[in-house]
Amino acid sequence: MPTAFPMNSPEKAELQEAFSAYLPLPARLEANLDGALRHVLGNPGSLVRPEIVLSLCAAYGLDRGRAKELAIALEYFHTASLLFDDLPCMDDAARRRGVPCVHVEFGESGAILSALALINRAYALLWRAAFACAPDRQIRGLAYLEEHLGVGGLLNGQSLDLRYSTLPHDLQTTERVAFGKTVSLIQLTLVLPAMLGGAPDDELLLLERIARFWGLSYQIVDDLKDLLQSPEQSGKTAARDLALDRPNIALAIGVAAAMERLERLMALGDASLRRLLARRPGLRFLAALRDALQEERVRLAQDACEGAGRSRR
Amino acid sequence: MPTAFPMNSPEKAELQEAFSAYLPLPARLEANLDGALRHVLGNPGSLVRPEIVLSLCAAYGLDRGRAKELAIALEYFHTASLLFDDLPCMDDAARRRGVPCVHVEFGESGAILSALALINRAYALLWRAAFACAPDRQIRGLAYLEEHLGVGGLLNGQSLDLRYSTLPHDLQTTERVAFGKTVSLIQLTLVLPAMLGGAPDDELLLLERIARFWGLSYQIVDDLKDLLQSPEQSGKTAARDLALDRPNIALAIGVAAAMERLERLMALGDASLRRLLARRPGLRFLAALRDALQEERVRLAQDACEGAGRSRR
Repeated sequence: MPTAFPMNSPEKAELQEAFSAYLPLPARLEANLDGALRHVLGNPGSLVRPEIVLSLCAAYGLDRGRAKELAIALEYFHTASLLFDDLPCMDDAARRRGVPCVHVEFGESGAILSALALINRAYALLWRAAFACAPDRQIRGLAYLEEHLGVGGLLNGQSLDLRYSTLPHDLQTTERVAFGKTVSLIQLTLVLPAMLGGAPDDELLLLERIARFWGLSYQIVDDLKDLLQSPEQSGKTAARDLALDRPNIALAIGVAAAMERLERLMALGDASLRRLLARRPGLRFLAALRDALQEERVRLAQDACEGAGRSRR
Repeated sequence: MPTAFPMNSPEKAELQEAFSAYLPLPARLEANLDGALRHVLGNPGSLVRPEIVLSLCAAYGLDRGRAKELAIALEYFHTASLLFDDLPCMDDAARRRGVPCVHVEFGESGAILSALALINRAYALLWRAAFACAPDRQIRGLAYLEEHLGVGGLLNGQSLDLRYSTLPHDLQTTERVAFGKTVSLIQLTLVLPAMLGGAPDDELLLLERIARFWGLSYQIVDDLKDLLQSPEQSGKTAARDLALDRPNIALAIGVAAAMERLERLMALGDASLRRLLARRPGLRFLAALRDALQEERVRLAQDACEGAGRSRR
């Protein structure tokens, strides 16, 4: 998610504290697992997702305590997915959130058991948040969670991502990977709080569409950054996707076509957002998210022009 | 669990079918993950645990459909724990349930993603089973689940198990490992169905005690088999725990002391079982489990005598 999203700082401090505190570690926990979990819980990411969850819950009238449980649960699922992603048998990453990866410091088994601890706690927190809602919302929300985390969502996306070198390198495949791996968690962030809060079906449908458009847009932005930005700009190794044969929409269809697709997706997102805000003005904080993504798009379009200019010289 | 537990065959066939069917695979699932999950779902274990869950649910009046969901959910958690256990960074096993391990055939990432698919589905099934119960039972049952799967239970046991070579090799440590790794899942099998079925507190306490006594007994039986039985008898490499410096109660305190501890634990279990059956005669199927464990104890005592006789000659 764009990290430029303007976050309200007292809320950020509250979420940082909750991220560390919502998985209490028993006094007699084995020392390596204890160290690994303290490393994870002491290094939260940007916390943009839980911030969005809190704002959505407020707009749909969910109790603040339950909202925080839901927000941290989704952030724990996301963090666990990163711990697995970084393992040598997956992306084989060395650093994450500015510090060494958990498996580098605490071994692969330490990273796996930490991720499982986050997942176990996330289901418990999520269930507690859902339990406060009416039974029909519980059933619907928990089915939505299962679908997006499971073989129909995140796990399929991760598996496609790992097997990408054996698949056609085209728009359809790169977007299937992005749908599973990136969009699933953004759907959970944008739709699940509203679902548990009892949003009417037309608003859920609009949030669902916005999650798809923005999720794919976010992936294209990330893919374009990989190609266009220097390591200083992006904070990552440049053109890593090409070197490692990773799914990248801009590599599959070209930078210009990816830029067009991004512009189109953002326009579709804008149309859904306008309709949603006409129904529910309390969701106008979403416009800041849209603006942050749009700014990244404009910056990348400039980078692409400069790059094209340089290559013509 | 003792595999000698006399299982009712129509029920076994029903559970085998449910084990395969309760995790539906989408048509467009990535091929490697699809293959890995078909491998897992097509090779169920003895299914003793879900058989016990069904019998407990029947005794406490839980609906058969919900009972099957709960039974398969717990078996999926157990199976996922085996997939992780077998990974190169944990026990580095090659075969399981008579076939190659999932990571051997489908890669480590295939094994990890399959285990996560089982876990995601298990939480969903368990929720559905719990959802049919009164709210206070749901809260209690799901907290019990979280506690036994998480950092206070299974994950701590697995972590202690992996770090055993750095810990004191004594009764206390080996039993701490067994509590986390073995007893936690047996507690879930014996206590959770009764808890969701609304068993009174005194019966829950007796089931809890039986799970602890039998869980530790089962671990001692397993540890003794590792030392006393030939590979043909046990189906495993002999004295593997010694060679790999794995936790083994009989290695920590000696075969004779382990035999005594096993006899004592079984006697304690018998006392709790008698009290439980006096209150709830419908649980008499548990006596067959007790008898199967007792038979294994007697057989091992004979093996130990013969071994001692051979070493005296």
